[in-house]
Amino acid sequence: MKRTKLRYGMIGGDLGAFIGDVHRKAAAMTEQAELKAGCFSRNPEKNRACGEHYKIASDRIYPDYETMAREEGSRPDGIDFVSICSPNDTHYKAAKAFLTAGIHVYCEKPLTFTVAEAEELKALAEEKGLLFGMNYSHSGNVMVKEARRIVRCGMIGQVINVNAEYLQEYLLDDVGNTDREMLQLGSWRKDPAISGGSNCTGDIATHIEHTVSYITGMELRKVAAVLDTYGQPLDLNANILVEYENGCHGVFSSSQVCAGHLNGLVVRIFGTKGAVEWVQETPNTLSYTPKGRPTQILNRGTDYISDEAAAFSRLPFGHPEGIYEAFANMYQAYTNAVLKKVNGETLTEKDLDFPDAEDGVRGVKFLTACLKSSRDGAVWTEL
Amino acid sequence: MKRTKLRYGMIGGDLGAFIGDVHRKAAAMTEQAELKAGCFSRNPEKNRACGEHYKIASDRIYPDYETMAREEGSRPDGIDFVSICSPNDTHYKAAKAFLTAGIHVYCEKPLTFTVAEAEELKALAEEKGLLFGMNYSHSGNVMVKEARRIVRCGMIGQVINVNAEYLQEYLLDDVGNTDREMLQLGSWRKDPAISGGSNCTGDIATHIEHTVSYITGMELRKVAAVLDTYGQPLDLNANILVEYENGCHGVFSSSQVCAGHLNGLVVRIFGTKGAVEWVQETPNTLSYTPKGRPTQILNRGTDYISDEAAAFSRLPFGHPEGIYEAFANMYQAYTNAVLKKVNGETLTEKDLDFPDAEDGVRGVKFLTACLKSSRDGAVWTEL
Amino acid sequence: MKRTKLRYGMIGGDLGAFIGDVHRKAAAMTEQAELKAGCFSRNPEKNRACGEHYKIASDRIYPDYETMAREEGSRPDGIDFVSICSPNDTHYKAAKAFLTAGIHVYCEKPLTFTVAEAEELKALAEEKGLLFGMNYSHSGNVMVKEARRIVRCGMIGQVINVNAEYLQEYLLDDVGNTDREMLQLGSWRKDPAISGGSNCTGDIATHIEHTVSYITGMELRKVAAVLDTYGQPLDLNANILVEYENGCHGVFSSSQVCAGHLNGLVVRIFGTKGAVEWVQETPNTLSYTPKGRPTQILNRGTDYISDEAAAFSRLPFGHPEGIYEAFANMYQAYTNAVLKKVNGETLTEKDLDFPDAEDGVRGVKFLTACLKSSRDGAVWTEL
Amino acid sequence: MKRTKLRYGMIGGDLGAFIGDVHRKAAAMTEQAELKAGCFSRNPEKNRACGEHYKIASDRIYPDYETMAREEGSRPDGIDFVSICSPNDTHYKAAKAFLTAGIHVYCEKPLTFTVAEAEELKALAEEKGLLFGMNYSHSGNVMVKEARRIVRCGMIGQVINVNAEYLQEYLLDDVGNTDREMLQLGSWRKDPAISGGSNCTGDIATHIEHTVSYITGMELRKVAAVLDTYGQPLDLNANILVEYENGCHGVFSSSQVCAGHLNGLVVRIFGTKGAVEWVQETPNTLSYTPKGRPTQILNRGTDYISDEAAAFSRLPFGHPEGIYEAFANMYQAYTNAVLKKVNGETLTEKDLDFPDAEDGVRGVKFLTACLKSSRDGAVWTEL
Repeated sequence: MKRTKLRYGMIGGDLGAFIGDVHRKAAAMTEQAELKAGCFSRNPEKNRACGEHYKIASDRIYPDYETMAREEGSRPDGIDFVSICSPNDTHYKAAKAFLTAGIHVYCEKPLTFTVAEAEELKALAEEKGLLFGMNYSHSGNVMVKEARRIVRCGMIGQVINVNAEYLQEYLLDDVGNTDREMLQLGSWRKDPAISGGSNCTGDIATHIEHTVSYITGMELRKVAAVLDTYGQPLDLNANILVEYENGCHGVFSSSQVCAGHLNGLVVRIFGTKGAVEWVQETPNTLSYTPKGRPTQILNRGTDYISDEAAAFSRLPFGHPEGIYEAFANMYQAYTNAVLKKVNGETLTEKDLDFPDAEDGVRGVKFLTACLKSSRDGAVWTEL
Repeated sequence: MKRTKLRYGMIGGDLGAFIGDVHRKAAAMTEQAELKAGCFSRNPEKNRACGEHYKIASDRIYPDYETMAREEGSRPDGIDFVSICSPNDTHYKAAKAFLTAGIHVYCEKPLTFTVAEAEELKALAEEKGLLFGMNYSHSGNVMVKEARRIVRCGMIGQVINVNAEYLQEYLLDDVGNTDREMLQLGSWRKDPAISGGSNCTGDIATHIEHTVSYITGMELRKVAAVLDTYGQPLDLNANILVEYENGCHGVFSSSQVCAGHLNGLVVRIFGTKGAVEWVQETPNTLSYTPKGRPTQILNRGTDYISDEAAAFSRLPFGHPEGIYEAFANMYQAYTNAVLKKVNGETLTEKDLDFPDAEDGVRGVKFLTACLKSSRDGAVWTEL
Repeated sequence: MKRTKLRYGMIGGDLGAFIGDVHRKAAAMTEQAELKAGCFSRNPEKNRACGEHYKIASDRIYPDYETMAREEGSRPDGIDFVSICSPNDTHYKAAKAFLTAGIHVYCEKPLTFTVAEAEELKALAEEKGLLFGMNYSHSGNVMVKEARRIVRCGMIGQVINVNAEYLQEYLLDDVGNTDREMLQLGSWRKDPAISGGSNCTGDIATHIEHTVSYITGMELRKVAAVLDTYGQPLDLNANILVEYENGCHGVFSSSQVCAGHLNGLVVRIFGTKGAVEWVQETPNTLSYTPKGRPTQILNRGTDYISDEAAAFSRLPFGHPEGIYEAFANMYQAYTNAVLKKVNGETLTEKDLDFPDAEDGVRGVKFLTACLKSSRDGAVWTEL
Repeated sequence: MKRTKLRYGMIGGDLGAFIGDVHRKAAAMTEQAELKAGCFSRNPEKNRACGEHYKIASDRIYPDYETMAREEGSRPDGIDFVSICSPNDTHYKAAKAFLTAGIHVYCEKPLTFTVAEAEELKALAEEKGLLFGMNYSHSGNVMVKEARRIVRCGMIGQVINVNAEYLQEYLLDDVGNTDREMLQLGSWRKDPAISGGSNCTGDIATHIEHTVSYITGMELRKVAAVLDTYGQPLDLNANILVEYENGCHGVFSSSQVCAGHLNGLVVRIFGTKGAVEWVQETPNTLSYTPKGRPTQILNRGTDYISDEAAAFSRLPFGHPEGIYEAFANMYQAYTNAVLKKVNGETLTEKDLDFPDAEDGVRGVKFLTACLKSSRDGAVWTEL
């Protein structure tokens, strides 16, 4: 009998974690994924509390991901996929363990700390025939998908300039701060050992890189980056010149110290025949300008949106969708594909319209190149 | 042992219905309400399909709400509350049946077709000691709650003018249309027998009335309304002068035929010391202007938002919340109260911060007065 | 020889007056009107100082408008037209004096205090064959002219709803204020004897009335108005239901006590095929929504703007024009016509595309009806 | 007797020229500068036509700027200052001629083609004791002056990041275009010999450089620039990393090929205590965010604007000022200073609050460095 629901497990995301909770709600919104196992925290109490809260069988609340991968991989009712939402330093090892155990993987970015590790995971997934999803979550927005459709079908012509930014203000107090204790209160993102050598660039500039590529299909060739640490161990601000494989230039600005900006991902793609602009904080609209004509404000949910994007729309126009829906759309695309896989169906290219290990590899390459470029004085650095 | 989860049932909201699905997702987001029974459709197949989809025990998928109210009211594991999401003409009878059976009721607006019915339900709920929630869903938005806090604590002084609107475009094709068949394709909202004598005013102007009262605490004294039907049985456009009990005047505009407006609820409250403005389509912000000072753009999730409103915030600033969260907040407040009730705890005024039967009565009075005023040539009509 | 420059005189507008200065700069921008005479103030010193500042010949700085009308009317090099910028109570008498003297008149609104006076002036101008311009200045904006073109050529179909407002905050301190001295500091607009029985409605709601009619060509049939004085002699706030001759309804809101609003004229016209929206504070753009399509943001100065509107555009796109240009466009249209007249040319309908005495009459009718309606309890009142 | 009016002459700006007309209207708005001489075009007919239009005495309509400088320099009623609005290639020689003749100079940017020439002019002006104004016109906006005041008085703390852009779309058709004839139709800006080796960077990125420095007082140390020509002789797009003398980094993006952007100068300055943002297309407002607080929308003309900025405000709040007023403010500041100078008064630092030859030198250095950096592969290049 054809399966309609998947079993999944989770790494990280205990009850106090913000992003793990979003992952669980998003998976639930698909109505085709049920949480059946997990290793939610390195802390045994937190791990158990979280598992119990979600009514996970006690033998499937695991002390570590190695055990979980091994046991789930050998149970007849084992999980179909694992969602890895733990801090960055665990992604590589955890993903490797589950792939090795024959379990599909859905992973938070960054994929790994090094390009070699990323490529190893990609190769391993391919070798095992497993689906590897990367949670570059902004791709889940309906109007990002519509932007992709508009650009991919030629409505803005050839892309000739990219201008994108991701500005936040939440670490502004860290600038020049020398109170180590206060700084510790911040997240693990500030700890080089856990976050992987970058804060701002790795956490948010990487979303710019991905979202632009998702929309345009273009790949970066090289970057010239200036990262600012303002006295802290890791970067809090990054201004980056970029060049794509097709010669198109652009600029990415990302920051965690820009007062007045909360979670300001803005992507603007300029082509020979027009342009598109999408703003994360008002995700239900998309600006589209055909050359020489007025700018149009497109709205999610309307009749003029393509079927391709509308397939991910959940509410009527004018009824705002937000972050949960964007994440849910990520899980929707990924679980659709995994369901087909477990049901033995053939996957088409359209079924694979979600960020994958290849995107993960590119993300690691991008970050690595930015860090090197900045160290070397903002010289052009190949990905 | 203290209960942490409630059992609830649903009237209406089969698998094809938009709003029923939002109710279920919203209830699920509270993590304290489980769907255990229902009468999802008058159509037996649809009813059963929906019940099975949600894994409702087959003996709790009921053919009608009378049976459901009676049986659930006598089961030891019967539902704690019922959510009524069916078309307007069933609200009164269904609500009465469940109240009579001793079950708490959460009801879509409008409460009833007549003021007498509405007051009867209100009295019945009070007599039975049951909690009656009304789904005036925009009150669920965090920034509406912040607006309420700002106004209630005197930050804009005495309210001296109200300007609010709810503009949509989705029925523009109905203007002057005489193709009955095409019109049938529209919703039951266009059928006087089901919707209750109004389309535009009853469906959306009523949200203006409620949201303003929720924010300000002011009650309407009289209205002067002009409703336009453009050749259809029911109103598609309404411009309404209002006077509150405290003498404050204002204007409400609502329409289903305004090109360029999707779901445009905009509420602006002007006082002697400042003003607030909230726009439903960008619900995560609130404009606040202190007299003689620059307008400030307040954002949900920030430190400067009051605890009272922040209690309903689910995501960090800059991460958009939308309709699901607004509905979830409605259920959160209501189920918090019902849980206290079933646990035998005493409810404070703060626990009762959700629209109730009294708000439902006011909504019916408002609609009734608007319809009468318009029929009488826009004369002032008392509520 | 064909004349290319006109001579004009001014009533009111001494050196301290805001609006007189705008009139002079606007006339100068046309490069076809030269200030040659004036009675700038009732105060002899101020009158002389202003005249000298503008190098007016001393015998053409007049002590009163009667003398000025008589003498300029009989000089061979007398003024071609007079611009009346003095407070409201002088408009009727001054206009009558100049018309009687055979001089074209350009007048600030309101035309007069009573409908009879307004109609008298209109008849007198017609009888004398003189051009009477009314300074409903917002009509001068290029994008208002483009809105007019869009509506007049049927692009939004039949107009079915109007929603317009003019909100200001500058008199908020007057609410409930009983300090007569402080109130005196305000303008003559607060003095019934000078302003003509209204402050808010006569000063700004009248602009709504005119701008909507200018764009749509529709004329008002009746109004139902609620004016608020908040303890002052004249109205500071007005909410008005309107019905046009063609049956179209709408609402006008105007206020001088709405915190957060500076000079907020917003005009929204809704039709069966689309809608337009214009906002005075960002006058270089116009929103246009074709039914069922995305809203478009039209920009002044672009190729897609009609020749009709573009004829009044002075700067390239993206280079903001403001109030001076709007006024200059008013003078441009009016002086174009007067030049043709003095050169003995025949004027076409297009040459007469400026507000005239007929518009002035309508403005007085509108105000009169609003005042009466509000006194009578917001009953529908014919114009 | 103290003089209150200046005589000025103009180089360039014939009747068909856009910017010359704006200069003349702006000078006229100050009411303290009268056009008395000119060499408006290399074309004798156009030169004479323009001179006659402005009633210039025929002996003061000059065939070339050398003659004009010599003769005006020796007339007793010669011009006090000259306004140079001709294409770029004449700036250096014309400015030198007038300085040599002892006449104050007000010059369009760029000052010269080379840094050596620019420094020569600066030294010459200083030696002669003449006032040299540079028309970096965006500095003339009231809200740019308010931004300067806010930043200079420490309200945003130490500047730590700059993000500014100037995006236009008007040359998008040039991308990849090989039709030389069509391209000729464009302006002289596309001709390297006249424009000086750059189109986009020299025309608009230079405004970013100046406006940021005007607001912050910071000077650039080095740039890393990528200029795109898309097959044309000169750059049409420029993305530039910048480093200021104080170590602050930032990014400038300028383009003439970005669909949807008309004249989009946007300046955002981020500091340790807050941020400001100004957008040229809506010049009457300024966004100011104090750290950890809501963004405030400041409006020109209000009581809370500083006297320093308000001194340049011409209209009440809510009444839009635009380009003419920005230019007029440039002339106001410059002619105020020249008047003091010709009246023998001592000039304070505040009197010199207008862009001068030093700013002109910096502009040339900036452009030179950008061109070199781009040629060298976007390497950091010192100014």
